[in-house]
Amino acid sequence: MDAPSERTRLKRMNKRAKYDAETVHGILDAMPICTVGYVFDGAPFVTPTLQWREGDRIYWHGSSASRMLEASENAQVCVNVSIIDGFVMARSAFNHSCNYRSVMVFGTAVKIVDSAEKEMRLKNFTEGLWPGRWELLRQLTEKELKATTVLSLSLDEASAKVRTGPPGDDEEDYNIPVWAGVIPVKQQLLTPVDDPRLLPGFTPPKHVTEFKIG
Amino acid sequence: MDAPSERTRLKRMNKRAKYDAETVHGILDAMPICTVGYVFDGAPFVTPTLQWREGDRIYWHGSSASRMLEASENAQVCVNVSIIDGFVMARSAFNHSCNYRSVMVFGTAVKIVDSAEKEMRLKNFTEGLWPGRWELLRQLTEKELKATTVLSLSLDEASAKVRTGPPGDDEEDYNIPVWAGVIPVKQQLLTPVDDPRLLPGFTPPKHVTEFKIG
Repeated sequence: MDAPSERTRLKRMNKRAKYDAETVHGILDAMPICTVGYVFDGAPFVTPTLQWREGDRIYWHGSSASRMLEASENAQVCVNVSIIDGFVMARSAFNHSCNYRSVMVFGTAVKIVDSAEKEMRLKNFTEGLWPGRWELLRQLTEKELKATTVLSLSLDEASAKVRTGPPGDDEEDYNIPVWAGVIPVKQQLLTPVDDPRLLPGFTPPKHVTEFKIG
Repeated sequence: MDAPSERTRLKRMNKRAKYDAETVHGILDAMPICTVGYVFDGAPFVTPTLQWREGDRIYWHGSSASRMLEASENAQVCVNVSIIDGFVMARSAFNHSCNYRSVMVFGTAVKIVDSAEKEMRLKNFTEGLWPGRWELLRQLTEKELKATTVLSLSLDEASAKVRTGPPGDDEEDYNIPVWAGVIPVKQQLLTPVDDPRLLPGFTPPKHVTEFKIG
């Protein structure tokens, strides 16, 4: 499959490039944690946040007062999601690497102006991570909705890059007497910790105990 | 402590801001995985890579042919390291949050031109992650050293942002009948996987079994 645009085309390690929706969506759906890059006064800024996908767009949100959301509204952004799967330990420093699944999305971030749509997107965000939680919560107030900005970005210019497997050493290095292989990495969720002010009798519900990322 | 520059000053959630070297260094040393933001043809790019710290500078490296390294040499960059420590589950959607330790560094990336210094930096990178490994490896060739660019950035304009602890709900929400608390997240290293072509008799050395991030 061909790159959807010039800047999306992977310049290096082309064999690791993937542009199909299944790969791109799979990575975006597996990892809400992302970074958003934008330009402010000519200089680059990178801000970590959470993204979610609906169809062929991704969304992220934040305080309406945040610099990231102000500066990236109707502006060019680059959203990156990276899942590191392992440290690849080779027989030369040069061939050390990482296993990873990464997505880059380029384009113009659009602000959701309709307040009903904004609330729906935020509900979809919460429900996507923790199905059934939204209805259990105190609902959003108008003031909170106003204080929240939701941005959206088309996946038209998205590309993925994936590395898996053992080290790729130079053929003549395979007899070097050193351990080689992969140290797998996984972002694991540990046992939920009750809020000290939790009402008596509550235990973590299924949407918490079954929550997974990565 | 005051922010070292205007763009370093945290605009929002000021109580979470920290500018002391101990906090900034601690986060950078705990997590090699980072993203580098830079501007190319006026548009933002964000690239994941690994960083390491030496004194009051951070370093990262990559192929001399990479767009990221070409475009960020002697240019403004923003390096972000983010460690997500937990999902904070509140009683309202609005008060949901993340626990995290994050560092932003702004400044001009400088290329290491001296080839001996470049090699020393790459050795320090490897030894910082896996003490004792460098000497076991096939050493860098001149060609590999030429093909590798190392960039460096001063920590003069660095800031950290840290959130810890339980949800901060609105006082009137604490009696809402829903589970609240924190789902801790940890980037864990799993059992090392031998390279299928590993020489017989080799097991993961201490620098592999004792390796930790986060």
